[in-house]
Amino acid sequence: MKRIGLLGCGAMGTQIALAIDSGKVPATLTHVFDDSKEKSKLLVEKLTHKPEIVENSHLLSSNPIDIVVEAASQDAVRDAGLSVLQNKKDLMIMSVGALLDESIYDILSDACKDFKKTIYLPSGAIAGLDGIKSVKGELESISITTTKHPRSLKGAKFFENSEINLDEINSSTVIFEGIAKEAVSLFPANINVAALLSLTGIGSEKTHVKIVADPNTDKNTHHIEAEGKFGKMTYTIENYPDENNPKTSRLAILSAIETLKKYCSNDIQIGT
Amino acid sequence: MKRIGLLGCGAMGTQIALAIDSGKVPATLTHVFDDSKEKSKLLVEKLTHKPEIVENSHLLSSNPIDIVVEAASQDAVRDAGLSVLQNKKDLMIMSVGALLDESIYDILSDACKDFKKTIYLPSGAIAGLDGIKSVKGELESISITTTKHPRSLKGAKFFENSEINLDEINSSTVIFEGIAKEAVSLFPANINVAALLSLTGIGSEKTHVKIVADPNTDKNTHHIEAEGKFGKMTYTIENYPDENNPKTSRLAILSAIETLKKYCSNDIQIGT
Repeated sequence: MKRIGLLGCGAMGTQIALAIDSGKVPATLTHVFDDSKEKSKLLVEKLTHKPEIVENSHLLSSNPIDIVVEAASQDAVRDAGLSVLQNKKDLMIMSVGALLDESIYDILSDACKDFKKTIYLPSGAIAGLDGIKSVKGELESISITTTKHPRSLKGAKFFENSEINLDEINSSTVIFEGIAKEAVSLFPANINVAALLSLTGIGSEKTHVKIVADPNTDKNTHHIEAEGKFGKMTYTIENYPDENNPKTSRLAILSAIETLKKYCSNDIQIGT
Repeated sequence: MKRIGLLGCGAMGTQIALAIDSGKVPATLTHVFDDSKEKSKLLVEKLTHKPEIVENSHLLSSNPIDIVVEAASQDAVRDAGLSVLQNKKDLMIMSVGALLDESIYDILSDACKDFKKTIYLPSGAIAGLDGIKSVKGELESISITTTKHPRSLKGAKFFENSEINLDEINSSTVIFEGIAKEAVSLFPANINVAALLSLTGIGSEKTHVKIVADPNTDKNTHHIEAEGKFGKMTYTIENYPDENNPKTSRLAILSAIETLKKYCSNDIQIGT
């Protein structure tokens, strides 16, 4: 049975811990850490099989576990990612935006090779990354259009220098069009999806992003188009928010749990 | 460096072998087998790093390799699949139709657990299986519509009992609508795609299949719709045939190579 250490005991970390505790992921959650001791304790209280709360993030991977699951923040990836691999543990990363920094990406990718360990990035709130990584070498264009209710875009840095008033939008309106590199700094709530697509395909300077505010939708919708010598892929992923954690798509949680389940099982594994 | 044994030296096996030989897949192809010795020899001639030709399929996995790649036939999966796992080797299967036989599926799935080995099924000529396996537990409906040129449907068993004459079709025409279980026996050329989708989601009795003949297309197009509590996923994958092997979509070859590359690398792995 695989042993898991969890870095981050917030909403996403809690859902992952519950999936392990219920047996949905065939593994044991042995150690947890969160900057907030309070959050760690609240999580442990919810679990039948109690993990140990460690004193800092580096102590997770110095224990005899197989994989550290990061569900904390980009800072946590920067701070603890390398030491996980150096301690010869695998790593699953939820805060994938951290990897858009090329120096972080290169350090972690090199460490995987040096220490013969693997970093896993779930498909998050999108899908079809199996297809996109397969055709990566001959992709000519790739774009993503994200449509959300205006309230889901509130507080984004983009609006500091924009005359758009989200409260006044009464029909579907294009808010932003540009490259992923720009989009991730202006719309942090969209960062994981744009980062994942950029990392899978041809990078954040060649991945086109459009953001649409639609006051008549109750879902987050991602529309992806990818073209090249192989043909064309078009995906539309319409996500309902998770009941317990409305800021996150249900699919993002399900794909994290599925990735961990696959890691922990010897079985028939479907998909590239 | 991982060591690979190849079962099947036809068009698909050759493309996989060339990808290993060129270094695209960081591994060594050490042993090959095909029922036709002629085909094995033809393949070995094309390679810079010559693998050994073994005398039967079981000898592949008795050698010190890490994984056997099956690119032969459903019969090969039935005949040699179990012994690969018993010999403590992983297995990648291209002829996924074999797994629609539940007894075969169960035997191989149990053997994975018993011998702590994994069977890999690439996403083939479709994509988005990352999303579908994540939402598997709450899928309410799933369907695939495959559109091909009438000539690509010729010879299918379906036409033995049908009055449709493929040569007379001059506009887009629905040829078949039914469950995947029926479709795979009537349209063997479509078997891998329907089998993959059934295995990933909710099985061949609940997966709906529509087959359309369109004399005005030069591509094979798969349109997939999946719905449930999570929301909805809609994929359209338009595939050009491979230049060297017009019976196969280029994507099917690329996804096989990508799956093997992932297996052979310690790196950042993207996608559920």
